[in-house]
Amino acid sequence: MRMADIATTNRQWRLAARPHGLPALSDWEFRTEPVPTPADGEFLVRVLLISLDPAMRGWMNAGRSYVPPVGIGEVMRALCAAEVVASNHPDFRIGETVTGSFGVQEYAVSDGAGVTRVAADVAPLTMYLSVLGMPGMTAYFGLLDIGKPVAGETVVVSAAAGAVGMVVGQIAKIKGCRVVGIAGGPEKCRFLIEELGFDAAIDYKSEDVRTALKERCPERINVYFDNVGGDILDAVLTRLARHARIVICGSISQYNNEGPARGPANYMALLVDRARMEGFLVFDFHRRYAEAEAEMAAWIADGRLRSVEDVVAGIEHFPDTLLKLYRGENFGKLILSAGDIPE
Amino acid sequence: MRMADIATTNRQWRLAARPHGLPALSDWEFRTEPVPTPADGEFLVRVLLISLDPAMRGWMNAGRSYVPPVGIGEVMRALCAAEVVASNHPDFRIGETVTGSFGVQEYAVSDGAGVTRVAADVAPLTMYLSVLGMPGMTAYFGLLDIGKPVAGETVVVSAAAGAVGMVVGQIAKIKGCRVVGIAGGPEKCRFLIEELGFDAAIDYKSEDVRTALKERCPERINVYFDNVGGDILDAVLTRLARHARIVICGSISQYNNEGPARGPANYMALLVDRARMEGFLVFDFHRRYAEAEAEMAAWIADGRLRSVEDVVAGIEHFPDTLLKLYRGENFGKLILSAGDIPE
Repeated sequence: MRMADIATTNRQWRLAARPHGLPALSDWEFRTEPVPTPADGEFLVRVLLISLDPAMRGWMNAGRSYVPPVGIGEVMRALCAAEVVASNHPDFRIGETVTGSFGVQEYAVSDGAGVTRVAADVAPLTMYLSVLGMPGMTAYFGLLDIGKPVAGETVVVSAAAGAVGMVVGQIAKIKGCRVVGIAGGPEKCRFLIEELGFDAAIDYKSEDVRTALKERCPERINVYFDNVGGDILDAVLTRLARHARIVICGSISQYNNEGPARGPANYMALLVDRARMEGFLVFDFHRRYAEAEAEMAAWIADGRLRSVEDVVAGIEHFPDTLLKLYRGENFGKLILSAGDIPE
Repeated sequence: MRMADIATTNRQWRLAARPHGLPALSDWEFRTEPVPTPADGEFLVRVLLISLDPAMRGWMNAGRSYVPPVGIGEVMRALCAAEVVASNHPDFRIGETVTGSFGVQEYAVSDGAGVTRVAADVAPLTMYLSVLGMPGMTAYFGLLDIGKPVAGETVVVSAAAGAVGMVVGQIAKIKGCRVVGIAGGPEKCRFLIEELGFDAAIDYKSEDVRTALKERCPERINVYFDNVGGDILDAVLTRLARHARIVICGSISQYNNEGPARGPANYMALLVDRARMEGFLVFDFHRRYAEAEAEMAAWIADGRLRSVEDVVAGIEHFPDTLLKLYRGENFGKLILSAGDIPE
């Protein structure tokens, strides 16, 4: 086994308790452990970047979902970009960069399951957790395979300045749709229109969304890509075009409810407008990731698709940084840099 | 113009006020008017049977829906089976039986728009408001075109002893599915299993639906045909199979709410289970009614499909009889006979 320069301690965040509402500091344990040693067929990575995702809140709850919950006392689950620093695995060599579910910690041992090698020389590493990673894949397959937008149709996306929404809107523009983004605050709204080419934006913090949708979607809404649920989903339901498609990607407005989630009261619009609401999980499309990545990389090279990342440095800031997501404070893909921000 | 035997008065129910909650007697006006005279290109019908449908409650509300609301002071909208008793129309002759939207009254004038001639000698007239009419078409296209059941799958239907649910379950059995009906009371549940061949039934009035679904749908639910919304829809959402289809046909549990409808709190199951919730309106399938009617008539002739009607006599009983629907007191298709029950 060859070894690169490795620290002797591994700082990590473990789940200490199941949160009620927004995760509190007391729901976490910040622990320092020895760096683990890879056994035969394993390798050790140093985590460089940790992806912070709205879905993390769901992973902290007990109960059935699409993945098992993170156990109390376990290292918090997270997608990461990392560097191989020691290897007893035939396929992974020291110095290679990879993405995988390494958790909120500085070092992790892996047998390679679910680990993907990335070309850090082709695109900045942050992009592999953003437009070329899960958020990008989620936007691509959710919009194109579930939403099925047609050129000339109106596409609305919520959390439009977030990691997924930003990509959804840009792909919808590439496909020839009229795109309206819903985001919080004038700065985000301006960015969507001026920098990302959205046709219009709605600031849900200062506007009545229902009225604004009426005005900015004069031909009603053909595709709604929902990241938020709650009031905004209900407002969109009042403005559907016939045979509209609602893509259920997330419901961040409801993740920290102490009681049960609130369902969309206006769901009978699905009947009135002969519309469809459909959920999906990006993992089901894994066989087509390479195809999507290639197409998106070409759009990036053309300048038709931009990636925006919001990187916070220091693994010690994990609990606070995660809350930025639920407070709508991030601008683009939220990433925690394990050490200093690279490059 | 030839004239058949016609009374001189036309009793009718008009909408007097928009109801709050369940329609009260004071929301109606029972009026006696002269029988109208058909102009050139029109004909006069005597209404024999009046279809009472859950959707009527929605028509009484102001606001956008798939049809305009019934105006205050207007005769209440209703599908009817009727007999032509006078005609200045080249295509309709005295003595013919027809169905059409003639309203809750004894006589109506029509120009033929939306009127269908029915063969009263082929099937009892009541069936043309039931399995061979809108409820049957709704069941047929909703289940087959929206729900897309596959042999061996589990199909659950609510309001299973109602006009639509009854047909949904029987068609699903014909298509080789395992069928579970949700209905109120042991008598209805017994009927579903013993008379209509359902595999299992759930009495929502005496059982915990969530627990019962777990037990009676061991392989989870592939298709749910929803007529009721509310708690039952939420219970079903906890028990979906992957790629399940929820057909939104109605939400009778919510129609008489004084506040806003309650949305399905568990709708994020659509994501976890990669499932779809879709609304439809039977009118969109009108070009294929004849095809469906022919297939269903063949099933009836084979003894594979049964129609059950609950006929109440006397137009004067309209307000009370309508409430049977919302109280779940009807058994099969609820029909009001304008005079005595025919045959």
